[in-house]
Amino acid sequence: MQYEVEQKFPVDDLAAVAERMTALGGTISEPQTEIDLYFAHPARDFVETDEAFRIRRKGEKHFVTYKGPKIDTTTKTRQEIEMPLPPGESTFDGWKKMLQALGFTPVSEVRKSRRKAHITWQDCEVECSLDDVDRVGTYVELELVVDKDQLDAARACIAALAEELGLRETERRSYLELLLTSQSLDR
Amino acid sequence: MQYEVEQKFPVDDLAAVAERMTALGGTISEPQTEIDLYFAHPARDFVETDEAFRIRRKGEKHFVTYKGPKIDTTTKTRQEIEMPLPPGESTFDGWKKMLQALGFTPVSEVRKSRRKAHITWQDCEVECSLDDVDRVGTYVELELVVDKDQLDAARACIAALAEELGLRETERRSYLELLLTSQSLDR
Repeated sequence: MQYEVEQKFPVDDLAAVAERMTALGGTISEPQTEIDLYFAHPARDFVETDEAFRIRRKGEKHFVTYKGPKIDTTTKTRQEIEMPLPPGESTFDGWKKMLQALGFTPVSEVRKSRRKAHITWQDCEVECSLDDVDRVGTYVELELVVDKDQLDAARACIAALAEELGLRETERRSYLELLLTSQSLDR
Repeated sequence: MQYEVEQKFPVDDLAAVAERMTALGGTISEPQTEIDLYFAHPARDFVETDEAFRIRRKGEKHFVTYKGPKIDTTTKTRQEIEMPLPPGESTFDGWKKMLQALGFTPVSEVRKSRRKAHITWQDCEVECSLDDVDRVGTYVELELVVDKDQLDAARACIAALAEELGLRETERRSYLELLLTSQSLDR
């Protein structure tokens, strides 16, 4: 089983962090729009069970992703199962219909512009994301996907890289949680 | 919304029916093995709601299919949503894991050898299947997928083609239901 070890950092100045990433050997990609449609489960309260299930559209590409409960208190380590879907215009709507027929309810759509970089740090290739999230804000995410016996090493690697990038303040909530919080504050 | 109008006929002699189909202009395909893994829903009893949800493997191809409740008493007319998955060895197991994480439970695997023919009849192109189903038996299925306003015409077309092919006895239960019945008789 593969685990996603991820840490999120609110940042005011994405360009400054991008510069530091470039200095560490990372190549910053062009921004790409990602649209995540999150679903409620027909029988489980995903807020309580700390799970998530979504369809992601990334340009022409589509994915379905399940995220299990977070298993530690500082990073966002959790089981992740992501399966690609075929490209094509009808994929997103077709899957939305299929999931609705099965009793899943669309909850909220998270839309962001994401630039990516890969930085090799302490022998790990860390996936770095520079995110500008609609109605949420600007954040950096550092992520590794590893087997269970590499979890501690992965957490240490991400903490060290964050330190090097000057990222200190962390945010454990997902973009979905942050969006739902900001929406409830708007009311 | 698209509906699947389908009728199933138990037949002792698939070769004899295949010959009649050829005489009506159908070309019989080579046999292909289809493996359908059916799932139970985390909150609904699909036997009671008369729904079905499965992953199908057909050679290298994979599909996820939802079938809604049957809406008439003679044919097997029902809503069907079928989405293709990318080909590849890891697709079947990856999706099985994803669905299990979401609380779906694998119920039973239906395995059959299927030959297909398309016959144009009363301006409809009917999909004909000649099926040899493991632990269930040999059957012919006639199927049309149509919009709601064409349901009556589709049923009439299938009835007329069945008559022409000498198919009289019908079977309304799915292969899954027939397999589960034969398994409970075995006990």
